[in-house]
Amino acid sequence: MTIEERLHQLESIEAIKQLKARYLSACDRKQTDIMRDCFVETEAHIDYGNVGQFNHRDGLIDVFNELGNHEYIIDMHHGQNPQIQIIDSNTATGNWQLYFQQINKKENTLTQLGGFYDDIYTYTQEGWRIKSTRFTVTSQLTTALPAKGTD
Amino acid sequence: MTIEERLHQLESIEAIKQLKARYLSACDRKQTDIMRDCFVETEAHIDYGNVGQFNHRDGLIDVFNELGNHEYIIDMHHGQNPQIQIIDSNTATGNWQLYFQQINKKENTLTQLGGFYDDIYTYTQEGWRIKSTRFTVTSQLTTALPAKGTD
Amino acid sequence: MTIEERLHQLESIEAIKQLKARYLSACDRKQTDIMRDCFVETEAHIDYGNVGQFNHRDGLIDVFNELGNHEYIIDMHHGQNPQIQIIDSNTATGNWQLYFQQINKKENTLTQLGGFYDDIYTYTQEGWRIKSTRFTVTSQLTTALPAKGTD
Repeated sequence: MTIEERLHQLESIEAIKQLKARYLSACDRKQTDIMRDCFVETEAHIDYGNVGQFNHRDGLIDVFNELGNHEYIIDMHHGQNPQIQIIDSNTATGNWQLYFQQINKKENTLTQLGGFYDDIYTYTQEGWRIKSTRFTVTSQLTTALPAKGTD
Repeated sequence: MTIEERLHQLESIEAIKQLKARYLSACDRKQTDIMRDCFVETEAHIDYGNVGQFNHRDGLIDVFNELGNHEYIIDMHHGQNPQIQIIDSNTATGNWQLYFQQINKKENTLTQLGGFYDDIYTYTQEGWRIKSTRFTVTSQLTTALPAKGTD
Repeated sequence: MTIEERLHQLESIEAIKQLKARYLSACDRKQTDIMRDCFVETEAHIDYGNVGQFNHRDGLIDVFNELGNHEYIIDMHHGQNPQIQIIDSNTATGNWQLYFQQINKKENTLTQLGGFYDDIYTYTQEGWRIKSTRFTVTSQLTTALPAKGTD
């Protein structure tokens, strides 16, 4: 590879890590415009298991608004152990693990979940975007919320 | 951007990630000299909410010595989802999420906390340093420490 | 440093982060071939404290098969706060923190553990590999598994 190609590869890996960080952070802060912008505009493949399967980003945002976008829901989406592979100048794959925690003040539950993402990214005019993402749950624990100290 | 500028940008992003990793790791290991060295020497802006606001790194170290630097306190500060932006050769911004856990063997409590950092970094003669940092808590859970298995 | 050397350094840091991500992810997915491949072929130094000390990767895999490679064990190994230093073109060091969680459905326990890795990496014909790794536990909590919601 040339210097230019090697630099571009490193820049792409960093851009994709930042894309996923932006997405996960936006999920926690309920910034649906940013969440939406992390996906390609056209057809996407989003497979979040029990949460739903969607062939366009708008489907995901609709379900998020229904299930997660409430004041009584407080989430942590923390991306772990990223493995990004640049396939060519327009395509990359990513494997991530996720640590997820949800406080639900209405149901009075604390849910903690582990799993992994298998992603495909596409380079667009706006930069790298998520083209395909599949999340697989490996563990889930739900308990009653501790009686005090919740914020 | 030239090759040189692009390389410098990637090096700066890596250096800043490592700066924050060094800071968070030093908090866990109670290495106050390293914690202190992660900030600029001169005036800084440190806003840790209920923990305190400081305009110099020495103020933060004083409070850490008072509240956290004890054998009965065992902390985890884990930085998540970094989003680093290089503004110019001397200035960068960073957004991070944090997973924090504190075992307090004196109070017999387990505290778990989520939140995010909004940081500004400055390039100094010693390398990148934290110039400004604001931490916002998004969730906090406190329970009694489990009766057995604590280490 | 030349442009070539600077690029190589950034590529090495990314490759080492990805090596550790691959290792930790393989531990969670019980992919022992991948775990094994993350270490040098020849003599290694693996010091995992109470789990054991090994001078070859095969010793670690044997213990993993005995203690962890069961359907009733569900692990999370999440690497945190990486600090990678490239010493020369064949040698690097790494410090990581770890968030570890283990669900044991046979013993009905939930274990959560924090600690840090001190690693040495060697560049081989197959790329960067772990030559030496020492894990130090900083905290451990064990409780009974919540009665419901386990998956």
